Order: sequence, then structure tokens, then C-alpha cells
Amino acid sequence: MTAVTLPTIKFLQQPTLTAWVEQAIAHLDTILLDHSHCERKAAGVALNLMFRYPSNTKLVRLLTAIAREELEHFEQVNQWLEQRGIPLGPLSAPPYAAGLKAEIRRAEPDRLLDSLLVAGLIEARSHERLGLLAEHCPDPELARFYRGLMASEARHYGVYWLLATEYCDREDVTQRLAQLAAVESQLLATLYPQPRIHS
Amino acid sequence: MTAVTLPTIKFLQQPTLTAWVEQAIAHLDTILLDHSHCERKAAGVALNLMFRYPSNTKLVRLLTAIAREELEHFEQVNQWLEQRGIPLGPLSAPPYAAGLKAEIRRAEPDRLLDSLLVAGLIEARSHERLGLLAEHCPDPELARFYRGLMASEARHYGVYWLLATEYCDREDVTQRLAQLAAVESQLLATLYPQPRIHS
Repeated sequence: MTAVTLPTIKFLQQPTLTAWVEQAIAHLDTILLDHSHCERKAAGVALNLMFRYPSNTKLVRLLTAIAREELEHFEQVNQWLEQRGIPLGPLSAPPYAAGLKAEIRRAEPDRLLDSLLVAGLIEARSHERLGLLAEHCPDPELARFYRGLMASEARHYGVYWLLATEYCDREDVTQRLAQLAAVESQLLATLYPQPRIHS
Repeated sequence: MTAVTLPTIKFLQQPTLTAWVEQAIAHLDTILLDHSHCERKAAGVALNLMFRYPSNTKLVRLLTAIAREELEHFEQVNQWLEQRGIPLGPLSAPPYAAGLKAEIRRAEPDRLLDSLLVAGLIEARSHERLGLLAEHCPDPELARFYRGLMASEARHYGVYWLLATEYCDREDVTQRLAQLAAVESQLLATLYPQPRIHS
């Protein structure tokens, strides 16, 4: 399948398939609802890491800022849902995040490294996909909204990378990122049949 | 033991013991660190409820605002810690929150009602205790900070009460609140030996 050409995002090994863009644009309402879930989950990921590593001051400080920002985006996406008359509700998750989470090793300090890199990879992919939505979305106001969010997502994966190099050996980080990024791209190599941000 | 006289907070059956105030003021650094944990946990409670009831629009909207505010307070308390040279770190929890959590019934809709009322009770007690810290704290700047937080805590328990009456029968709410408030006061009837916000 064809892949979309976009400025390369260092974290990602493979760009998103054109088929995802077509699927997403054809089901923008579902994508918006899923996006709402993604923002809330991203806040949850940051908060969980703050709970797990309460003594890591830099991690706590930077992830507090991320959690606050994700909740702000969650509110904004929910305003879009309200404006479009889409009720809030549950939505089945694609295998993407669970597939990545399964790669997180259980023993420390591997667990910290893997958790940070997995969170960073998800942010990087979200950044790429919101960019694609901004580019292809037929509603110019919604496109502007997506474009506005992209900068934050980019900052977020930068923060996760920074924290990984703060607490772990630089070479270990680079090597493990390559492994996890391969898994990440592999998980998206086949389009998930339901329209999702990470299908 | 003597109890502190303060304007009654409707949610609470018994006011805080004077012994708590003495313990807290004598160990302000530990109280500040515990307060930081309390703010992060309060954000976690709100976020967990948003995860569990994703279709309850009003709950999601109001708890997003609470979670954002708790994270803002968490940041502010952490700035106080930094200013006083107190490192972030884990702290054992008093039996208070676990004792209340044990009262939450497992089956819906009881689970929702109990979860909201327990969260509301904790906010109400925090409101009362931050007020006591504001009144008795020897550092006027820190006292001002505590006073500033009180208004939010009051709003928060108002929100939890409002949500309980939104999703549950008013009489059930009143009756269950009385039961849980009795447990809440009972849990604090004996001072926990470690200085904590909820000792």
C-alpha cells in the first residue's frame, strides 16, 4: 500500500498508509470520538508514570505539564463533539496501544525506559496523524484545530525522549527505541478495519 | 479529645481533632509532601471516574475541570516543596482513603453513587483541614496559599454532590451520604501517628 509523504518524524520507522487517511476522512465523527479517548488516555499515561516514579522530580514536573495539556485537549475535542452532536461514549480500542504495552519489560530500569519510549512513540504517531488530518480534513476550522494540536504532540514526544535520556544510558535508549519503533510500525502495517486514530 | 470549632461543613459529621492541628503544624514539611501526594491522587480519582463512565457527559465535563485543577495545585504544592528544599518522594498512606474505598459497593449504580460520595467526603475533609492549616500555620505566605486552595476544595465537594444527585435518586444520596460520613468521621476518630493531611 502507498504511504503518505510527510516530513520524517525521527521516532517513526514507517509513515502512515494512504489507506488510513482515506478511512479517517470518511469517518471523521468516529475519529473525533476516538481522539477524545486518546487525549484522556494520554493524560492517564502521564499520571500513571507520575504515580509510579514519585521521586523522579524532573519526570514528575514535565509529566504534570503534559497531563494538564492532554486534559485541555480532551476538553477541546469534547467541545467539537458537542458542536457536531456526537454523544460521548465508549469505543473499542484498536490493538495498537495494547500491542506496544506488551513490549514493556517488567523489571526496572527497563520498565521505565520502555514506558517512556512507548509513550513517546504514541505521541509521535499522533503528531503525524493529526498532521495528516489537518492536511486532508474538508472542514477548514477543524483542520485548523488539528494543526494547533500538532505542536503539543511534537513537544510531548520530545519530552518523553528527553526523560528517557535523563534516566537511562543514551546508547540503551537509541537501541531500544529502534526495536520499539519497529514494533510500532509493524502494528500499523495492516489497517485496522475500524476507523481510529491508531488504526 | 477536643475538636476544633469551625463553620460546619455539611458533608462532615465530626470536626477535626485539635490533636491533628498540633501534629500537622509540628510537621509542616511532611504535611506539604503528603499534600502533594493528595493533589495527584485527587486528579487520579477524577480521571478514573472519567474512564469508568465515558458516556456520562456531565460527569466527564465536570471531572475534567476538577482533574485539571488538582494538577495545577499539585504543581503549586511541588513549588513549595522545592522552595523549602524538600525532595519529592513516596510517603506511606494513612488508612483513611483505603478505609473509605472499602465502603464502595461493587454493583452499579451503587458503585457510582458511593464513588462520588467518597470523593466528595475526601474533598470536604481536605477543605476543612486546609482551612485549619491556613488558620494555624506560622508562615503567613504558606497560610495564604492554603486559604487560596480552600475555595477549590469546597467547589469540588459541591461538584461530587451535584453529580451524585444528577445520576442517583436524591433520597438514596442523602441516606448513603449519612452512612459514609459516619465511617469517614470514625476513620479519623483516632489520630494516625504519622503526620498526614488525613491522619
